[in-house]
Amino acid sequence: MIIQLDQQCNASQLSDINTQLSTIGYQGSEIETQFGKYIIAIGKKEFDIRKIGSMAGIKDIHRVSDAYKLVSSKWKVGKTAVKIGDDLLIGNGNFQVMAGPCSIESEEQIESTVAHLVRNGVKIMRGGVYKPRSSPYSFRGLGQDGLKLFYKTCQENNIKIVTEVMQVSQIEPMHDYIDIFQVGARNSQNFNLLDELGKVDKPILLKRAISGTIDELLQAAEYIFSNGNERIMLCERGIRTYEGAYRNTMDLNAIAILKEKSHLPVVADPSHGIGVRKFVPQIALASILAGADGVIVEVHENPEKAFSDGQQTLSYQEAEALYENIKSTLALRKNLV
Amino acid sequence: MIIQLDQQCNASQLSDINTQLSTIGYQGSEIETQFGKYIIAIGKKEFDIRKIGSMAGIKDIHRVSDAYKLVSSKWKVGKTAVKIGDDLLIGNGNFQVMAGPCSIESEEQIESTVAHLVRNGVKIMRGGVYKPRSSPYSFRGLGQDGLKLFYKTCQENNIKIVTEVMQVSQIEPMHDYIDIFQVGARNSQNFNLLDELGKVDKPILLKRAISGTIDELLQAAEYIFSNGNERIMLCERGIRTYEGAYRNTMDLNAIAILKEKSHLPVVADPSHGIGVRKFVPQIALASILAGADGVIVEVHENPEKAFSDGQQTLSYQEAEALYENIKSTLALRKNLV
Amino acid sequence: MIIQLDQQCNASQLSDINTQLSTIGYQGSEIETQFGKYIIAIGKKEFDIRKIGSMAGIKDIHRVSDAYKLVSSKWKVGKTAVKIGDDLLIGNGNFQVMAGPCSIESEEQIESTVAHLVRNGVKIMRGGVYKPRSSPYSFRGLGQDGLKLFYKTCQENNIKIVTEVMQVSQIEPMHDYIDIFQVGARNSQNFNLLDELGKVDKPILLKRAISGTIDELLQAAEYIFSNGNERIMLCERGIRTYEGAYRNTMDLNAIAILKEKSHLPVVADPSHGIGVRKFVPQIALASILAGADGVIVEVHENPEKAFSDGQQTLSYQEAEALYENIKSTLALRKNLV
Amino acid sequence: MIIQLDQQCNASQLSDINTQLSTIGYQGSEIETQFGKYIIAIGKKEFDIRKIGSMAGIKDIHRVSDAYKLVSSKWKVGKTAVKIGDDLLIGNGNFQVMAGPCSIESEEQIESTVAHLVRNGVKIMRGGVYKPRSSPYSFRGLGQDGLKLFYKTCQENNIKIVTEVMQVSQIEPMHDYIDIFQVGARNSQNFNLLDELGKVDKPILLKRAISGTIDELLQAAEYIFSNGNERIMLCERGIRTYEGAYRNTMDLNAIAILKEKSHLPVVADPSHGIGVRKFVPQIALASILAGADGVIVEVHENPEKAFSDGQQTLSYQEAEALYENIKSTLALRKNLV
Repeated sequence: MIIQLDQQCNASQLSDINTQLSTIGYQGSEIETQFGKYIIAIGKKEFDIRKIGSMAGIKDIHRVSDAYKLVSSKWKVGKTAVKIGDDLLIGNGNFQVMAGPCSIESEEQIESTVAHLVRNGVKIMRGGVYKPRSSPYSFRGLGQDGLKLFYKTCQENNIKIVTEVMQVSQIEPMHDYIDIFQVGARNSQNFNLLDELGKVDKPILLKRAISGTIDELLQAAEYIFSNGNERIMLCERGIRTYEGAYRNTMDLNAIAILKEKSHLPVVADPSHGIGVRKFVPQIALASILAGADGVIVEVHENPEKAFSDGQQTLSYQEAEALYENIKSTLALRKNLV
Repeated sequence: MIIQLDQQCNASQLSDINTQLSTIGYQGSEIETQFGKYIIAIGKKEFDIRKIGSMAGIKDIHRVSDAYKLVSSKWKVGKTAVKIGDDLLIGNGNFQVMAGPCSIESEEQIESTVAHLVRNGVKIMRGGVYKPRSSPYSFRGLGQDGLKLFYKTCQENNIKIVTEVMQVSQIEPMHDYIDIFQVGARNSQNFNLLDELGKVDKPILLKRAISGTIDELLQAAEYIFSNGNERIMLCERGIRTYEGAYRNTMDLNAIAILKEKSHLPVVADPSHGIGVRKFVPQIALASILAGADGVIVEVHENPEKAFSDGQQTLSYQEAEALYENIKSTLALRKNLV
Repeated sequence: MIIQLDQQCNASQLSDINTQLSTIGYQGSEIETQFGKYIIAIGKKEFDIRKIGSMAGIKDIHRVSDAYKLVSSKWKVGKTAVKIGDDLLIGNGNFQVMAGPCSIESEEQIESTVAHLVRNGVKIMRGGVYKPRSSPYSFRGLGQDGLKLFYKTCQENNIKIVTEVMQVSQIEPMHDYIDIFQVGARNSQNFNLLDELGKVDKPILLKRAISGTIDELLQAAEYIFSNGNERIMLCERGIRTYEGAYRNTMDLNAIAILKEKSHLPVVADPSHGIGVRKFVPQIALASILAGADGVIVEVHENPEKAFSDGQQTLSYQEAEALYENIKSTLALRKNLV
Repeated sequence: MIIQLDQQCNASQLSDINTQLSTIGYQGSEIETQFGKYIIAIGKKEFDIRKIGSMAGIKDIHRVSDAYKLVSSKWKVGKTAVKIGDDLLIGNGNFQVMAGPCSIESEEQIESTVAHLVRNGVKIMRGGVYKPRSSPYSFRGLGQDGLKLFYKTCQENNIKIVTEVMQVSQIEPMHDYIDIFQVGARNSQNFNLLDELGKVDKPILLKRAISGTIDELLQAAEYIFSNGNERIMLCERGIRTYEGAYRNTMDLNAIAILKEKSHLPVVADPSHGIGVRKFVPQIALASILAGADGVIVEVHENPEKAFSDGQQTLSYQEAEALYENIKSTLALRKNLV
């Protein structure tokens, strides 16, 4: 059960509510986010919802039987637009493209990419500085120094940055240089990291785990939300299956269903979702018709020379065609009957 | 290696070719279809392809290293348009919708559905008369009698029929009453059935197995083709994964890749691909942007009362919106840069 | 609901029972096997089971809520021993080894294998004469001629034969030359084949489908049983997963659970279950502790030269060590506390 | 390529080796563990291995083409026995049972469990104090206070502790109270955590990820080893598949293959591997025949009342029978031919 509190709900009212919850055998967790105050009440007994609903300090009350609560569309029917920086929105009708290399490699690469994005009206640049790699002997990113270079050029060009955070201790040093913290597939159930990201004032792009269920993704988002941060984007990036003809199985069903189950925006990652450059654009467009609020794609001046993920990275030319086609597809989507 | 023979290739030329193949350690399988004569030559040694290529009776020669040969786009670069009946095409720019109930239930149902299709310009009706069911105690279809009813109404309205054939002994009795033999997911590697369908003069809609790989689907198609029938449509209908939030995981990656690997048309089945009525239309449209040449959808006058698959079946009204949106999506696809 | 009928139940009693079932809104399917007569009654309403249970002609009555009924241990608590030929049992404490090559290749090979089996006290020989192959250009088995050779040598040495049947039309010609019809993974839901195998008087070894669920396997067995043949062995042969370090994922959980859910014997196929020769023996022994009533293993005089599956086939020497170890493992199993 | 250095290898020799590596186009990573010094040299060119092998300071040199190096059996053919505390070994013929509740719940529970273990000669107790939970609203463990209670009783009874560490910041506070750091399935590719666990002087029990491949598990272990800690146990705990009849699919193939590919000990976790109490013992025993060096099982005085995982937890009585049967199975394994 979600109890939405009045912003003015005072300590005495809160205490009364908690007392009442105890009386009916429920345990309440108080939650305060940037945008609201809530109590999540968990219990088993049936009771008359009006008895609590009418108490002072309560704005509204909703039964949500799913394991996830605050990220559910069962209590928040309208879609959420997440603010990125001061001037950008995603969700609830706002679509964003995020593009850039798998890894940040050099200042020249950043400048070239930013120029490409500016030319094409793309507002958010992706690029890894801390790279999770299966092998300890692989390139693990330029780290904090790379991030500062990344920030400098983006800042000058009003391009927002989305980049992966891999552990709690990176949150603070990264904070001032990024616009969106990305949680990668391997950390999708790193609950301590999620807890801490719930306490920051930046939006989170949360990827589905390698074989994560839709429910697990929503519960992972609930970790962030229930720690205080409502600004969450869910990201479908393909799941692991038996099929070996491509890298991952892009799950467009999941996009459709996430959009139904949650009010949060959903971003499609076709680069990882199929993992083969030639097919990334058509999967990107298909994702839009499945319901995505944004796409994140890997783009590089010279994919063959990329430090990582070259085989799924678009060249500038391929990306430019994609940006055009995204516009037409969004126009189509708006006009569907 | 595929050796395309001249239509006029005579017995003596054929004998020379086979002798030459033996000499270089290759084994040849002669194949004659509605449209051409071929030898599939399998062997391991390297040799000078021109030595064979210049022999009398040979039109062209192609190396195809995949396990499937004749269905590969490596030898046939242009796309194949498959003819359905006398007047309908699918593939190579021709798109078809196939719609109708999971099971044929009654004459009234057929008539109502046909009227719905005619009203909406849909040319092909789906409907099962032999139903593969996990349990022996479930409804297994109206059988041959149902098929005759199905045929009568469709014939009168120039609607083509696609329906599932489950075993070799059904081919002959069904033959005169259908336009497309459908092979279901559970029979996708029923090799004896595929062999026999290679000998009929009707097109085949071949579904991917429940956890079939893309390669297995193409090899299954190769069974049909190499037995003489080039008129094959491949069908993506979702695969089995760990995710339980929907019925199957629609694999749009597979559509993109099948279109690349094969010259055959590819049909999307979003009804089975997600299995939840509300989401079928958006997955259908997404399939088009992934590259599908057709869609097959379950439609019923009253989905709640359908004998089977009601939960993934569209009402007429929902289907009509989908038909409209398919048209706009096809228009968009034509105009992508 | 399973209604077990008296063997003497007469037509009039049967009619009364069916009338009574109709009255309470149930639909009955009459089933007659080698060993019993049953009615499977399907319906939704609750009713007093004693009202029917006390009718003349009824031996016993059991509620079974699973989709499978007669193969369930919910009505038949004791384990079933299936008779193979006249003198062999499997299940209910009787363990059998089935060994031999993937494909029957020649008379010499049959003789050599039979001699190996006789030397080691193995009573059942496996060997394919009709081979399901992903590619139409692969070796598809020696067919009926191979089967006759196979039969001749086995017959002379009192070795039973288990071999795969791929389609309905093969049942009759194969019937007199085999002791066990094997249904392969790709035909595990070939319902027409299962129906017909329900009408033969030989036992069936039914393999789990490539990604078949435990429930689907039991429902497939129900097809055979409900058509009249109670002599069924279930076979776990590995499932398809994302892991590529071996051929299939041997699912020993399934053996444990099949033994719990069904009274039928369960056979383990470690050769396909892991697909790597070196590890076949340890998986075979592990299967026994998981509960298997038999194992089927691929054995060849010279695995490197086998026509098919050589990489998962044991040499005679490896097989002999395995037979010894099977005996010790069975002795251990008997003595577990 | 793994270059094993002499323990006496000095700085000048090391510098010469690195120079030589550069000359041939290889990049070396120096690694120092509790037990040895190594250089992992990564490069592409072929070269004469003897040229480097004969340099001063080098003990031995091995080509290992896998992505993982130091955990591979390709360079270390003999099996590794990992020391736990001062007096316990696992691996290379030493078998250990780890048993205890999913979660540490209370002092009484700890005492009761320890008494049970002491009575039965079990030397290692499992029990979670930091619990990774899909939902933020679930019980997340007693934390550091629970750990101190856990430690006190175990210490007094010479029982070793294995418990899960979820993040880097927990390593230090936990360090003095535990004997084995467990890395859970969700953190199996938490590379920062693995890096840090490579720097501690306690053994690590590393679980396979929820859908981790065998190769990924070995590369995760390589993270720990290459940071300096050779004391690693690999743990198979079941993988996620489509099958819903149990919790996870216990992958005994993986145990067989891990034992072949790596010199590290492998522990089986049948509690998570099947997730159904009744079947845990038979899967535990099967794991031993597949090659496990240890088993970790969930045990609780009263499984129905356990805070978590009760459905897969053994009672003391069930566990006692299992301990007995483990002994007989180990005796059998030793005597297999």
